[in-house]
Amino acid sequence: MAPDALPVSQMPAVPPRILLGPGPSNANPRVLQAMSSSMIGYLDPDFMLIMNEVSELLRRVYQTDESLTFALSGTGSSGMEAGLSSLLEPGDTVVMCIYGFFCERMVDMATRVGANVVPLRAEWGKPFPEDLLEEELGKHAKVKLVTAIHAETSTGVRQPLEGISALAKAHDALFMVDAVTSLGGNEVAVDDWDIDYCYSATQKCLGCPPGLSPVAVSPRAHDTVKSRDSKPVSWYLDLALNANYWGFDRVYHHTAPVSMILALREGLRIVLEEGLESRFERHRRNADALRAGLDALGMEAVVPREHALDQITPLWIPEGVDDDTVRGMLLREHNIEMGKGLGALAGRVWRVGLMGESSRAEYVLGLLSALEDILPRVGYEVPQGAGVGAASKSLSTA
Amino acid sequence: MAPDALPVSQMPAVPPRILLGPGPSNANPRVLQAMSSSMIGYLDPDFMLIMNEVSELLRRVYQTDESLTFALSGTGSSGMEAGLSSLLEPGDTVVMCIYGFFCERMVDMATRVGANVVPLRAEWGKPFPEDLLEEELGKHAKVKLVTAIHAETSTGVRQPLEGISALAKAHDALFMVDAVTSLGGNEVAVDDWDIDYCYSATQKCLGCPPGLSPVAVSPRAHDTVKSRDSKPVSWYLDLALNANYWGFDRVYHHTAPVSMILALREGLRIVLEEGLESRFERHRRNADALRAGLDALGMEAVVPREHALDQITPLWIPEGVDDDTVRGMLLREHNIEMGKGLGALAGRVWRVGLMGESSRAEYVLGLLSALEDILPRVGYEVPQGAGVGAASKSLSTA
Repeated sequence: MAPDALPVSQMPAVPPRILLGPGPSNANPRVLQAMSSSMIGYLDPDFMLIMNEVSELLRRVYQTDESLTFALSGTGSSGMEAGLSSLLEPGDTVVMCIYGFFCERMVDMATRVGANVVPLRAEWGKPFPEDLLEEELGKHAKVKLVTAIHAETSTGVRQPLEGISALAKAHDALFMVDAVTSLGGNEVAVDDWDIDYCYSATQKCLGCPPGLSPVAVSPRAHDTVKSRDSKPVSWYLDLALNANYWGFDRVYHHTAPVSMILALREGLRIVLEEGLESRFERHRRNADALRAGLDALGMEAVVPREHALDQITPLWIPEGVDDDTVRGMLLREHNIEMGKGLGALAGRVWRVGLMGESSRAEYVLGLLSALEDILPRVGYEVPQGAGVGAASKSLSTA
Repeated sequence: MAPDALPVSQMPAVPPRILLGPGPSNANPRVLQAMSSSMIGYLDPDFMLIMNEVSELLRRVYQTDESLTFALSGTGSSGMEAGLSSLLEPGDTVVMCIYGFFCERMVDMATRVGANVVPLRAEWGKPFPEDLLEEELGKHAKVKLVTAIHAETSTGVRQPLEGISALAKAHDALFMVDAVTSLGGNEVAVDDWDIDYCYSATQKCLGCPPGLSPVAVSPRAHDTVKSRDSKPVSWYLDLALNANYWGFDRVYHHTAPVSMILALREGLRIVLEEGLESRFERHRRNADALRAGLDALGMEAVVPREHALDQITPLWIPEGVDDDTVRGMLLREHNIEMGKGLGALAGRVWRVGLMGESSRAEYVLGLLSALEDILPRVGYEVPQGAGVGAASKSLSTA
């Protein structure tokens, strides 16, 4: 191969998608502008001020005065791995509440770092039963960590966390929470809920591109990481080393992804300009409208409304309708991305994400009208206009 | 704290820095434009085409037909950790050629994953002596991996790799190379030099923001990762799982940082439009000019020219001159960032990076004229105009 002989690419520009899958969601234009800022050094004193601002904005979004808040230089899964590999030492017992695809990912990661992993598997699509945890915790002399996922995007369940937290604390365990899909779209109250390690991602309800994992580390979790007997298996995701760079010491760790941090700053400003409560209400209102529309088309959500997330709504694929065909038509004819099922729900559900910038009334109506157009052509008759009408009514009475 | 009570930030925009440190370097404007593209799904068929193009462009830049090429979702250090944690199993012997700060980081990482680490420490600031490796390899029945850094940014030494590679292969070991600072600025010939795992970063000679680690994985390295007895300790940086997503299977692993991948595509196109040889020549020419200017000012580079990198030039801080004061004046008065020393060279050297977009004649002259302005004011007399004159002459005769 002649390495210099490059044909200039004829690749088209990025198509203008409406992203209603599990993420990335659409990004705010102000955030995209921040992404194109010129470079600045990761130890530049002006960049240190920007990092301070990001930490402060994150404290507000995470609703914490107590915790260290910063961003890891990887996607949401890196936040998951950072927590498990930094909080757990080989042989430590971790009790994991398991009720979906991403819960199982936690089991895989914790096993890799050599922990004594106790997975408590409960039914997918329902909130985790706390008595299962209570019973299990009673069997162990020492549990280091209890884990849960606030918003399981594979099932669409909104998991209440206060009961699980209280049980963990009653047994002197740390409590780790995945808020990848909830932060910025749902209340996440790190101090009130006594969460020791909480991680999220930029591309869901924060309106940013994917690439960072914002985290909140309680004083107790920070002490735990600093007083380990062994170093964490991961250097890159070592929470103590990352905290040193983001904290007052500013000790060089790795070259920070400065563009993404500038984008996150802008995304967090937008979240707080809208206001947390207003933002949560917007997510609720649009999810209600989506559900009203789906009901009117005879399509069923996997999770009953009272336990369901506003951010992502898995729905059963109608009998006889082909998963890929419909998602392909949506993408090619309407430029709308809808998510597919994962794990035990692969091929059986679609997942509609209404997160951050993608949680908009016009997208709800656009998706419903597209489904009204497509479904009859693949053999599933729907009452024309009924979905859009029901959603509009829901929006106007919200 | 009232989480919604955000004062609108008065933070200034990002200052227009000339980045002549160890990275990030300045980014190409076309790359910055790509950074602000609208979002697209990480499993979108149009995004799959873009990923294919990135892999193909990387094959050309890495000069390989044989290797899998893709980008990890983290900075250069994540590429280091991915290689060590995926290629090494607990107890495996790795022989590490050590001659600078980043070599020592490799030792830390390999120790964390439980390998039997054999560090061969040689003098900083000189090329690694191959006989040290030959002697050590003769002592071991089985060495899994040999590691080296092509361009140690802490010392500025350009390390020849063919001899080390031949020794590794003679002992049936895999050969892993850090090309973080060399790729795109120096020849990196993965096939010709028989490198099994090579990683780099986007923010040095590729003209992109930091955030991704482009890698090349040889068939033998890929087989090694796929046939491990134990899973790698890191799930996020598991090379086999990342290769599955980037390869033909397109198995979901984590949400890819799509903006960074679009930026990398543009950066790689620009590298190949300029042409690898022309690009290397530009780096050589500007480094020569810098050296000519520093010589004329009586300032001494750490590494003799014949062993020196073109990308980064560490120089001894003149006797009696304060490190922080000068770098602060450069930044505040001239908007120029220059790097500080690391590890054993902290406080003793400055490091001038001329990498990718930052390798420009006007920046060389700008830095020299700024030093001619600043140094006399901190007690170090220099012949006014001599540095700029010598650099100009070097450039005009290049």
